[in-house]
Amino acid sequence: MLDAALRFTDKNRRHFVDELSKLVAVPSCAFPGFPPAELTRSAKAVAELFRKVALEHVQLLSVGKSFPYVYADWLHAPGKPTVLLYAHHDVQPVGDLKKWKSPPFKATARQGRLYGRGSADDKAGIVVHAASIAAYLKTAGKLPLNVKLIIEGEEEVGSETQPEFLKKYAKLLKADVLVIADSGNHKTGVPSMTTSLRGLVNADVTVSSCRQSLHSGMWGGPVPDPVLALSKMLASLSDEKGFIAIPGIYRDVKPLNKVEKESYASLGYTDAVYRKQAGMLPGVSIIGGKASPCHKMWRLPSVSVNAIVASSKKDCANIINDSAWCRVGVRTVPNMSEEKVFKMLAAHLKKHAPWGVKVEVRKVTAGPWWGTDPSDEVFQAAGRALTKGYGKKAAYIGTGGSIPFVGPFSKALGGAPALLVGVEDPFSNAHSENESLDLGDLQKAIRSSIHMYEELSKLKRK
Amino acid sequence: MLDAALRFTDKNRRHFVDELSKLVAVPSCAFPGFPPAELTRSAKAVAELFRKVALEHVQLLSVGKSFPYVYADWLHAPGKPTVLLYAHHDVQPVGDLKKWKSPPFKATARQGRLYGRGSADDKAGIVVHAASIAAYLKTAGKLPLNVKLIIEGEEEVGSETQPEFLKKYAKLLKADVLVIADSGNHKTGVPSMTTSLRGLVNADVTVSSCRQSLHSGMWGGPVPDPVLALSKMLASLSDEKGFIAIPGIYRDVKPLNKVEKESYASLGYTDAVYRKQAGMLPGVSIIGGKASPCHKMWRLPSVSVNAIVASSKKDCANIINDSAWCRVGVRTVPNMSEEKVFKMLAAHLKKHAPWGVKVEVRKVTAGPWWGTDPSDEVFQAAGRALTKGYGKKAAYIGTGGSIPFVGPFSKALGGAPALLVGVEDPFSNAHSENESLDLGDLQKAIRSSIHMYEELSKLKRK
Repeated sequence: MLDAALRFTDKNRRHFVDELSKLVAVPSCAFPGFPPAELTRSAKAVAELFRKVALEHVQLLSVGKSFPYVYADWLHAPGKPTVLLYAHHDVQPVGDLKKWKSPPFKATARQGRLYGRGSADDKAGIVVHAASIAAYLKTAGKLPLNVKLIIEGEEEVGSETQPEFLKKYAKLLKADVLVIADSGNHKTGVPSMTTSLRGLVNADVTVSSCRQSLHSGMWGGPVPDPVLALSKMLASLSDEKGFIAIPGIYRDVKPLNKVEKESYASLGYTDAVYRKQAGMLPGVSIIGGKASPCHKMWRLPSVSVNAIVASSKKDCANIINDSAWCRVGVRTVPNMSEEKVFKMLAAHLKKHAPWGVKVEVRKVTAGPWWGTDPSDEVFQAAGRALTKGYGKKAAYIGTGGSIPFVGPFSKALGGAPALLVGVEDPFSNAHSENESLDLGDLQKAIRSSIHMYEELSKLKRK
Repeated sequence: MLDAALRFTDKNRRHFVDELSKLVAVPSCAFPGFPPAELTRSAKAVAELFRKVALEHVQLLSVGKSFPYVYADWLHAPGKPTVLLYAHHDVQPVGDLKKWKSPPFKATARQGRLYGRGSADDKAGIVVHAASIAAYLKTAGKLPLNVKLIIEGEEEVGSETQPEFLKKYAKLLKADVLVIADSGNHKTGVPSMTTSLRGLVNADVTVSSCRQSLHSGMWGGPVPDPVLALSKMLASLSDEKGFIAIPGIYRDVKPLNKVEKESYASLGYTDAVYRKQAGMLPGVSIIGGKASPCHKMWRLPSVSVNAIVASSKKDCANIINDSAWCRVGVRTVPNMSEEKVFKMLAAHLKKHAPWGVKVEVRKVTAGPWWGTDPSDEVFQAAGRALTKGYGKKAAYIGTGGSIPFVGPFSKALGGAPALLVGVEDPFSNAHSENESLDLGDLQKAIRSSIHMYEELSKLKRK
């Protein structure tokens, strides 16, 4: 059954590239100002693909003002686990059209890659699900487990109606395992599974000393400058080596476990690689001690000032500003408490405010980190499947950014473990011009999915 | 001769308020976008006033694209000193028309004050010169010394063509003493003479670490945040008490002399007065040690960050900025070297830049301070005149802001001492809405000028 499925997918490789190209042809951008009708057209194209591969109960769902989700299932494996497969059919805007080497909504193959908006993010995810299911249903006529598919239509604009959707359709979506095909591989050809996401605590800080700005010549001297005061506060946030200097901030950080340690070490992600990828200027130091860059990006907290403003370049006058404003962002990791981090940050800033200046610290966001234990049998099973599909050992990686819905999604499904996989690679330019997909990785991802259904079917239902 | 002049001016008090009102009626704003013809109309109105008071060689002068200056003289006191009287006939824009309680270009008297744009700054200066000269010429038919008047038409927009003008007309303007009637009194009814102006060193500082901004989640950790780096640099600029922390910065500061010390002490300018006038928020400390606020504002250096920008409130995203920019301003005092201050500032900032970030410090301006010795006989003579005219002891004050042309002006006239006087008081709102002039002070200033010609006529020409 497995071998027949694998053979099918290799034989029909070209066909599913064509199916992906059809999906890419629909400019399904959910951002304000883009035609909403394209989202419906896109959902219908996805539904058509699902019907073709013999999925059942194919339908468009929505809630409130949401763009259409596409649902489908195949539930004829009684006693076997149910896996919920997620992807999204909406895409980013195209950016600068002049920078595209081929039209964004005409999938174009060049040197082993398929170019087009959504080719990688995330229409490839839809095709991986469909192709791997087709491989079973078109050969054995059945799958080794039960599958449900949910393809969202507004992920790129923040999945705002998703909580409401999950609530309304909780029963329909119920599953034992959640597979989110919207991430990427650490390197082309090296399968990766994301086992942690960082959270984010954002705070707006306003420092003021006077009721109005003052002429810096006429008044300068006795009055504290809010920008200098804010500088002293911000300077206190990190130490000489670039570690966060808020006392106790590292206390709750969960150490890397054995699987993470080994996997991170295997990536060969050195300071030199980071320096090049991040575009660091010559002579600028890598900060934060000796941990590897991936460890720092994925599983250690970091702090940055996302914006700071007092007056402006254009209106710059010889003044002492009445106030200075900035937004500070702290990235959190398992098992830090967002609430506690915000309180520590606010207290630390206030404690370091000099000269009695007035300080206001307001919480903007406190999105959760997400983390899972990669030594759990589900992840081990998925890891084996990826290793088989790609012919290379699967890596367990983290993602430094947040995908806020992963935690709530998993929770809404009764705590089902979430597997974060995907076909993007470092050259995909997912949110930029000339988005592309490695066609070799697409095929490997489909083969991995075939193996994954097989692997997961062996798991006992909890 | 003196008494007759004083009687004349008291008798004709109303007349010169009317003359001032005529000048106020012309909207002579030299800012871009305002009708240039009004500057010519304004200059002609000034010329008419000067002709009426029997001044000679009344003419409009200009150089290059300058707005018209008005020149006049009376030079029939051979062997006596020549004083050059300066004021300007251009005004600030009106600001928010809705905030004006009476039309800005219709001089309106209310409760002893005359409201209108330019009533204080600086059409009053023109009228003080004209009225005090008229007092002599209309009674004795002569002045006790020689006078030249030069009334500028573009002071509020930065006197850009003034250097060229001074060069072209150096011979015409030659004088022994320069009286600049464009300052103000420390309190209503208390005559003040400005004996020092602060200079200004402005520097643009740019800190960068990467070729482009980075997603703070995906990349945050290993790379130094330019805003945090800049914060550490700016934090190093002042110490806990708010003193400038650039080593040696206070070394060249000229201590207050006896006249300044006594005069500052006599003003009763306490921290509480400063706190109220500056609009300081409750709980905010007065910084910079125990010196009086006027000492700090006028004769000690100060530092402020006039603007700081990385990203913006509107576009604030979860990023590590590629760079952070700010403008730092250091106010200088006698006998600091602007060049040296810039070098010290740049070196100090670079020395405190952490993590190898790239720092660029660019000089924007380095305008000179100006200071004079108030114990010189010219100032003592002027002080006596002010004391007689106001019936209150004249104060020697400083001004914290710069009037960049005072030094060059004095230099262009062969080093003639410059007397900075004026009729503005703390309620004049000179650059704001509802500009006004205390009519009592106008009369006192005219009487002081009459005394001043008398006093200065006794000086030996150098």
